[in-house]
Amino acid sequence: MDALIRALREALGHAAVLTGEGIPVAHERDWSVVPAQRPLALLRPASTAEVASVLRLAHEAGVAVVPQGGLTGLVGGATPRADALALSLARMSAIEEIDATAATITAQAGATLQAVQDAATAAGLLFGVDLAPRGSCQIGGLISTNAGGTGVIQYGSMRAQVLGLEVVLADGTLLSMLRPMLKNNTGYDLAHAFIGAEGTLGVVTRAILRLHPKPRTRLTALVALPDYAAATQLLQTLRSALPGSIAAFELMWDDFLAAASRATAQALPFAGAPPLAALVEFSGPDASSLQAGIEAPLAALLEAGKVLDIVLAQSDTQAAKLWRLRESVGEILMRFTPLNFDISLPLAAIGTFVAACRAQLQAHWPGCEALFFGHLGDGNLHIIIDVTGLPDAGEAIEDAIYALVAQERGSISAEHGIGLLKKHYLALSRSPAELAAMRAIKRALDPRGLMNPGKVLDVD
Amino acid sequence: MDALIRALREALGHAAVLTGEGIPVAHERDWSVVPAQRPLALLRPASTAEVASVLRLAHEAGVAVVPQGGLTGLVGGATPRADALALSLARMSAIEEIDATAATITAQAGATLQAVQDAATAAGLLFGVDLAPRGSCQIGGLISTNAGGTGVIQYGSMRAQVLGLEVVLADGTLLSMLRPMLKNNTGYDLAHAFIGAEGTLGVVTRAILRLHPKPRTRLTALVALPDYAAATQLLQTLRSALPGSIAAFELMWDDFLAAASRATAQALPFAGAPPLAALVEFSGPDASSLQAGIEAPLAALLEAGKVLDIVLAQSDTQAAKLWRLRESVGEILMRFTPLNFDISLPLAAIGTFVAACRAQLQAHWPGCEALFFGHLGDGNLHIIIDVTGLPDAGEAIEDAIYALVAQERGSISAEHGIGLLKKHYLALSRSPAELAAMRAIKRALDPRGLMNPGKVLDVD
Repeated sequence: MDALIRALREALGHAAVLTGEGIPVAHERDWSVVPAQRPLALLRPASTAEVASVLRLAHEAGVAVVPQGGLTGLVGGATPRADALALSLARMSAIEEIDATAATITAQAGATLQAVQDAATAAGLLFGVDLAPRGSCQIGGLISTNAGGTGVIQYGSMRAQVLGLEVVLADGTLLSMLRPMLKNNTGYDLAHAFIGAEGTLGVVTRAILRLHPKPRTRLTALVALPDYAAATQLLQTLRSALPGSIAAFELMWDDFLAAASRATAQALPFAGAPPLAALVEFSGPDASSLQAGIEAPLAALLEAGKVLDIVLAQSDTQAAKLWRLRESVGEILMRFTPLNFDISLPLAAIGTFVAACRAQLQAHWPGCEALFFGHLGDGNLHIIIDVTGLPDAGEAIEDAIYALVAQERGSISAEHGIGLLKKHYLALSRSPAELAAMRAIKRALDPRGLMNPGKVLDVD
Repeated sequence: MDALIRALREALGHAAVLTGEGIPVAHERDWSVVPAQRPLALLRPASTAEVASVLRLAHEAGVAVVPQGGLTGLVGGATPRADALALSLARMSAIEEIDATAATITAQAGATLQAVQDAATAAGLLFGVDLAPRGSCQIGGLISTNAGGTGVIQYGSMRAQVLGLEVVLADGTLLSMLRPMLKNNTGYDLAHAFIGAEGTLGVVTRAILRLHPKPRTRLTALVALPDYAAATQLLQTLRSALPGSIAAFELMWDDFLAAASRATAQALPFAGAPPLAALVEFSGPDASSLQAGIEAPLAALLEAGKVLDIVLAQSDTQAAKLWRLRESVGEILMRFTPLNFDISLPLAAIGTFVAACRAQLQAHWPGCEALFFGHLGDGNLHIIIDVTGLPDAGEAIEDAIYALVAQERGSISAEHGIGLLKKHYLALSRSPAELAAMRAIKRALDPRGLMNPGKVLDVD
């Protein structure tokens, strides 16, 4: 091991190879409950060539490598191991090129989401992915976890933003797929194998990402709804009235609305407490055509009792106030011992799924507080359950809810990934044939099993 | 071999296993110049289970299988081999489900593009991919070749339409990935491995595809341009003026415009013959907001000399007339012995690339007619060269043009794929490391090398 550390110091320089007490505690864990763990060493390469050197040396020595981005993950995917090197991409944070004509940006893996967003904005464009820890999370991590967020309904997840990708394989081979073309049918699309692979197939070092024209206007509405069927009808109606203009469609059930109202000390802007409310954001060239486009369909739904009430934000301040309800999750969590679920389901199944969840929870853990909310446009449902009074119920609750997810052929992880925390449940969302194919690909690209071992799935 | 044919007849029924003279000649080739070849047998399974039986039996016997869709491919990807079984998906043509709320359609691999488009239209929605042989080409083939077409700028290629996929692997294993959710981060996204793999990793049998809301209005314009830089500026300006509204942006160089005008016996609607013209189609909720959106930016470009002239279609008939210019390719080809190129390049490189191509052609093959046109929004350039007077120049011209593509780090196949015809040039667009990774994945999923062998790349 000493020989490996010496070789790494020779390759990267002394200051880029930290060991023992020299390793910042921030690198010992991510944002999940997975316990902190000090790695063999923390490596801070400054270039793709240095990443390749690290992987080549580690491969020769038979030592595993755990890649780390901004460490904001929620499933332990970047949590180090005592027997492995941790590889931080933080020093590779350059925005290397922005091409306003082609609407592309080239960034190193360690660039933060915020840096990419800011560079896009400065060029008069927009980056399509946004999520709360934008100042910390890094492009390499976002790609490796196929990050989602609220913009997926309009722009797709991280996968849809990647045009070109540069990856270093387990043995140090540089795999450059840095081509900016939208159309390129020259054999297998290797890049998709690494997107969402959580660093188990290679280390993402650089990407060419799509940018989008910035919408001129946004229009925000909070819509009170009588039931789940009305929510899907609203989505379908608005989509058809204004194709491509729905920038967000966040659905909140009554339990979440009550908790959000309390957490933000902000009354709901409706006469009563509706069973559900949808926070809808539209984007388009101008406000008047957006308003004109939604007026008649919303009036018809109101008339038919499929919509109970509508609050249309008249200013940016009012829009921000409506968004505060949805974004109060952080404040709600402060009074919770939370159990978080990040699942996705076929759209038609979500209403009955929520009812079945509530019934199970009340039957087995009466009185426990459970909040339901999600991004309806992409089938993503979040559930937060307070287990403050139920210290030992966590695993049983997870078992119960994931079993319901499996029944509906849903996904046990819509956007957070698998990492360590959800590995145990992976077989509920993927068939034995799929798991076997995943293992075959893992063995093909990382035959010695040195890339982020133990994450996502066990190979042997 | 007789034992295999007997076993296949037992599994599929006698009528579904054709041999010798019983094999329709249409199954002996695709639309490319690759010579016809009669397969060992033509199999016509009626279900996924039957496809699995075929592959299991062939695998046990060590006999290769060539999957066939509508056989409209242009690179020989589905051309049979004398030592292999041909597997037609034509009998599996059901549209199984359409969910208007979730905007998804479930179809068997043998459903034609036209059938999927019609079913979407009947549900008030739209399928995002369109190409000329829509009545013949099949969903399985479109997925296996990641088909493109003119809609890619707005909806992406076939890859972007696939939500769920069902594939049968080389050994007959059923790999079902039929989940309709947009967000699903549960390990490796296996489906992308099969999209664009041209049947070399498995047989696509069924898919869940995205549908889109149907645009209310379309607006078509033909814009005369002074040079290539003005074309990219026009694209960028219109994108920013009407985000998400550009449904097509087809660029035609003067040589193509002249040939199209002649082929359609239709004068260009401009005073002179411009160096370039862009056929632009916008989609949106209503014509007046579209017109209002483009008026000021187009006027500014006219004023600055970046646009020479604009013809805005005032009716569907006028729009169709403008589209006839672009769609005259078939008529043009009738007087050509054509050499076709389907390449993609970084947007910024296309103008100089066209100039370099013309210079090379004129230097080595003076007087040869070459037409340039393409889908500018996605970097896709088509070139048709008439080699009528140059019977032996084909390979030298290909070598010269693909070398220029490689210089610009472009793609030798934007949408048609590799098949047999472009295998020889694949290394110009993919690095040795990429080819090695492709081979590793091929070996992992098809260890005996029985899936469409010899297509895309040779494994050993």
